Amino acid sequence: MKAGPKLSLAMAVVLLLFAYGPMLYTSEASSENPAVSMAAQMAVRTFPSGSPDVVLCSGDPKRAGDVAAGQALASYLAAPLLLTQSSSDLGRQTIHALSLLAVPDVNPDNDVQPYQPQPGKPKLYLVGNASAFSPSLLQKIKSMGYPVEKVSAENEVGLLKKVADIVAPSLPSGQDVKGFPASWVTYAGNQEHNPVFPVSDSAPNLEKQGVSWNFAEKAAIPFGLEFPDLNELGMRNAPVKMTQSLGNAVGVTAVNGIIYAESDDAHLYALNAKTGKQLWQAGPAVNCLMGNPIVGNGLVYVTAGDTGFSFSQVMKYLNSQGKTELTRGLLYSAIYAYDQNTGRLVWRQDFQGNAMPSPAIVDNTVYEATGDGHLYAFESRTGKMLWKTDLGGFDSMSSANFWRNPQTGQTEIIVGVSDANNVVAVDASTGKILWKQSTSLDIFNTGMGDNTPAVDQNKGLVFQDSVVDHDPKTNTVDLAVYAMDAQTGTVKWYRKLGRGSTPPAYKAGIVMVHNGVVYVGSPTTSSLYALNEETGQLLWTYHFENTGPAGAGRGSAVYAYDVVWVAAGPTVYALNPATGEKLGSYNPGGRFGIVNPVIVGKTMYLDNSYDWVHAIPLNKIYPGLK
Amino acid sequence: MKAGPKLSLAMAVVLLLFAYGPMLYTSEASSENPAVSMAAQMAVRTFPSGSPDVVLCSGDPKRAGDVAAGQALASYLAAPLLLTQSSSDLGRQTIHALSLLAVPDVNPDNDVQPYQPQPGKPKLYLVGNASAFSPSLLQKIKSMGYPVEKVSAENEVGLLKKVADIVAPSLPSGQDVKGFPASWVTYAGNQEHNPVFPVSDSAPNLEKQGVSWNFAEKAAIPFGLEFPDLNELGMRNAPVKMTQSLGNAVGVTAVNGIIYAESDDAHLYALNAKTGKQLWQAGPAVNCLMGNPIVGNGLVYVTAGDTGFSFSQVMKYLNSQGKTELTRGLLYSAIYAYDQNTGRLVWRQDFQGNAMPSPAIVDNTVYEATGDGHLYAFESRTGKMLWKTDLGGFDSMSSANFWRNPQTGQTEIIVGVSDANNVVAVDASTGKILWKQSTSLDIFNTGMGDNTPAVDQNKGLVFQDSVVDHDPKTNTVDLAVYAMDAQTGTVKWYRKLGRGSTPPAYKAGIVMVHNGVVYVGSPTTSSLYALNEETGQLLWTYHFENTGPAGAGRGSAVYAYDVVWVAAGPTVYALNPATGEKLGSYNPGGRFGIVNPVIVGKTMYLDNSYDWVHAIPLNKIYPGLK
Repeated sequence: MKAGPKLSLAMAVVLLLFAYGPMLYTSEASSENPAVSMAAQMAVRTFPSGSPDVVLCSGDPKRAGDVAAGQALASYLAAPLLLTQSSSDLGRQTIHALSLLAVPDVNPDNDVQPYQPQPGKPKLYLVGNASAFSPSLLQKIKSMGYPVEKVSAENEVGLLKKVADIVAPSLPSGQDVKGFPASWVTYAGNQEHNPVFPVSDSAPNLEKQGVSWNFAEKAAIPFGLEFPDLNELGMRNAPVKMTQSLGNAVGVTAVNGIIYAESDDAHLYALNAKTGKQLWQAGPAVNCLMGNPIVGNGLVYVTAGDTGFSFSQVMKYLNSQGKTELTRGLLYSAIYAYDQNTGRLVWRQDFQGNAMPSPAIVDNTVYEATGDGHLYAFESRTGKMLWKTDLGGFDSMSSANFWRNPQTGQTEIIVGVSDANNVVAVDASTGKILWKQSTSLDIFNTGMGDNTPAVDQNKGLVFQDSVVDHDPKTNTVDLAVYAMDAQTGTVKWYRKLGRGSTPPAYKAGIVMVHNGVVYVGSPTTSSLYALNEETGQLLWTYHFENTGPAGAGRGSAVYAYDVVWVAAGPTVYALNPATGEKLGSYNPGGRFGIVNPVIVGKTMYLDNSYDWVHAIPLNKIYPGLK
Repeated sequence: MKAGPKLSLAMAVVLLLFAYGPMLYTSEASSENPAVSMAAQMAVRTFPSGSPDVVLCSGDPKRAGDVAAGQALASYLAAPLLLTQSSSDLGRQTIHALSLLAVPDVNPDNDVQPYQPQPGKPKLYLVGNASAFSPSLLQKIKSMGYPVEKVSAENEVGLLKKVADIVAPSLPSGQDVKGFPASWVTYAGNQEHNPVFPVSDSAPNLEKQGVSWNFAEKAAIPFGLEFPDLNELGMRNAPVKMTQSLGNAVGVTAVNGIIYAESDDAHLYALNAKTGKQLWQAGPAVNCLMGNPIVGNGLVYVTAGDTGFSFSQVMKYLNSQGKTELTRGLLYSAIYAYDQNTGRLVWRQDFQGNAMPSPAIVDNTVYEATGDGHLYAFESRTGKMLWKTDLGGFDSMSSANFWRNPQTGQTEIIVGVSDANNVVAVDASTGKILWKQSTSLDIFNTGMGDNTPAVDQNKGLVFQDSVVDHDPKTNTVDLAVYAMDAQTGTVKWYRKLGRGSTPPAYKAGIVMVHNGVVYVGSPTTSSLYALNEETGQLLWTYHFENTGPAGAGRGSAVYAYDVVWVAAGPTVYALNPATGEKLGSYNPGGRFGIVNPVIVGKTMYLDNSYDWVHAIPLNKIYPGLK
């Protein structure tokens, strides 16, 4: 930062030039185009700390029509727009402005600070027809070290079409929608948490090959750079803080050719699954978005919240020896319902406690459990509250799941809560509590309320795991998996998976059940386990690589094409479902939180704690895949 | 929300029209200008949930130059830009787009949801020369119910000048700076917390009269509307949540004719003190900005943080019976240094714990105490860390103050910390702890760490107050004020001010000391007290009006023109300093958190929990003022 003071002194001078510049320059150098200087002056004032992108259009009045296209792009990029003095001259003021629109390096000791754009010169989008920017000007701009992207066409309408392809691309249709589900009713897409949609024979070749792209969300951190706050937080806590405060906490949603991702950056992104291009974004929400988007009845439902407690809650807990019911969530919390095609907000409801986990949508009703210890039921299209039920504990990060009783036709909403730790089943139509299961073991921390139960609809089983038997001396825990009767909550079997040091933050793994096998990870041992669904008998264990002190295995595995796929730490793995042996692996960059893969055709979609969304062809992870 | 579904269905249809519209319309109705339809299409996609503001320019290619001015205004307002079909016709697509750019009513049961713009039709800024919008078109727009503001001039340069006056107004200079301080070194402007700058005889008449304006920040809630989440939170907690999560927690800063305000909306605002017009804004920061901006060495320092604890901290506290040192702050925390004239970010440092309170700047060093229990010293121009010291407790909301020892020339940095509760004095040059004072009383909750000590430099006294003697049965507390020897920390005297129900959140009042009198409020009793500085003897008490169950009296009083001025609850008061009797009062709208008035000339500057900044002529509060 040595350069800092000089720099900002220079800035102050230049700004004064700007403030009084127009007359000054027009008198002193009448050849200068006042539109150029005023555009520069306004861009710098509106973007005082620079911008990674700048749109550049001709300042020649005869080409003024180009600005309509340029402004649409600038609005989309939330970037400033500057004008050239002529086709061969940027103009003095524009050169000044570009130097001030560079993103400053505000902390050379620390490569990454959260929500801080990378320092450096902005990328220039040159919007105009071929002759608007002369070869010599292009040369000069490149020699000044500015990356350039040309958006060029012969006339204004052509330019607008080019820009419209970026700003407002068409929604997926026809072949690009084939193979995708039409709705997404609960966390990870279905009751068993296996969001897999195999390719159909009629699918286009591209879908069989799989697509490949990376999409950077608003707070995206370049791969390879160290964690924000690493110096302060260390490798045990920095990844957790990123998962809870910066990037994507859990997996993406795939519906009708669109990938939906919720980010801690408080935005919902709708991306074209084939191209990775943004269709629209919604936000900012009132808090971090940590859920898996739920899609039904034409709307996409997302939830905003945080993991905090006030000091008054801390004191109440201490003074009651842990007997007080706590309210979780510090800042504002809400559930939002957006039009699934346009991103327009249709309804919103606010809560006293956090709304981090995902809702479930069953029979035109949306169910959301929150940090104020209630399960809420809302009319899915209007957001009208139908009822709320006290769950007897706060929901930390447990998304609602459901089971339909084939005998009675009754639907249960099933969710985990903390303090007291329980899995709770509620009647979907009345809100009446049907059963609670706390298990006989000593649940630790937010155990049951962190984790989202999996359901086997046909066998009538509910699966939940939790850290148990904490030893304060060694600060170690075990992880126990429970199989419960969906109708009564009775524990059919449970199995402990092994002790290890207590993981930071989210301490369990999301269960996936498929074809008689329960798959569950444990950040305590950084391993994936396969268990017999009926007995809990251990079939195999796979220990993840390079997981670090934060541990890994929080996100659920998925089963597709006779392969088990799972994301843990920095890596995506393909495992042999019979033996657990590794068939292949791939590091797409960044690091995964509680993320499960989503597989459509031969493509895996996931998002990460670095605030990126990935599309990865399965054969890139497992080249041997048939 | 009955209209919701139909509306969003209509939207989907229109969007599809947009997606394929251009060719369609140009074939079907060749008279339509494709630039108009594409601008509309892109505006709707970029602002899917509408916008309170829309910029409208002529789509006539001959007037295309106007768009340069229009886009600068749109960029400044973060608003979409639409084009007219002709000077007498909006065009079908623009009319469509305007209907979709209305802000939807997403929750008719609740007037206010935090960070949700008020529903309704956008305000249209008509940017172009007089003939760009025909009288008949103007008439039509108004008949459609759109509020209109014309930004008109005879030519493009004239338009740009008009827009530049809005987007990039000149910085205050000459007379408009007179009477303002040139720096702001500690919370509330000086050691004694009396930010009062009386009018000079040479001051312009306007300054003697006082100025009057209201500025709406990003999350501003219209006066008269109920609190966000009131139904969920109630009148005791809703105002607190607004103060901590939506509006301005503490008072503003006045330097060189500029008013600086930090908001929970994560932005720093720089306003022209005379006009209330925004000069620039900086942000969003990584968390809520809850401090009083500190200005020195050409930079303005602000701090981002929150009040939260993770559940792991809660458990550690319980298991240690409250003996663990806690780390406060859930999301990311940082201190930012911006150029005081341009708003350009110069440096930033991140912390593990929260950085809510304000730093102090002494002799080219910036001192910040944080939720991770440390006092940090940074080189003021570069942000280079000089040292950090463990304070033995976390800083909740206590800003750093200082005292210069006239004998030794040594400077002490003085701050309060919680758990353990202490006032701590640290050597400014070495970071060595000089003394700690916990007092003999039973401090409750975050007591000492919430509050910012006041210092009488000449008498060598430090003043701090805290809630004490909590009674769990009645949930009542007392508030005690301490006078400590600045050199040793020895308590010279203390006085209890009276019991009352425990206030939510911030539980104390900021002390102001002036001319031998200590002024301190108590949200426990919702009263202001005047005490003899030497003895603590009670001189008078004033009980605030309409304070509600949250209590009031958190912000400090100020002394100007032989009147005591204080903001509490919804009201600003003028009191007789000899007797405490009320001389006048005024409700500017909204509600005040821990806000102290700032007085320059005959104007009072303050900000509120509704996310507004006010300038109020003193005679509006006390018409009898000489």
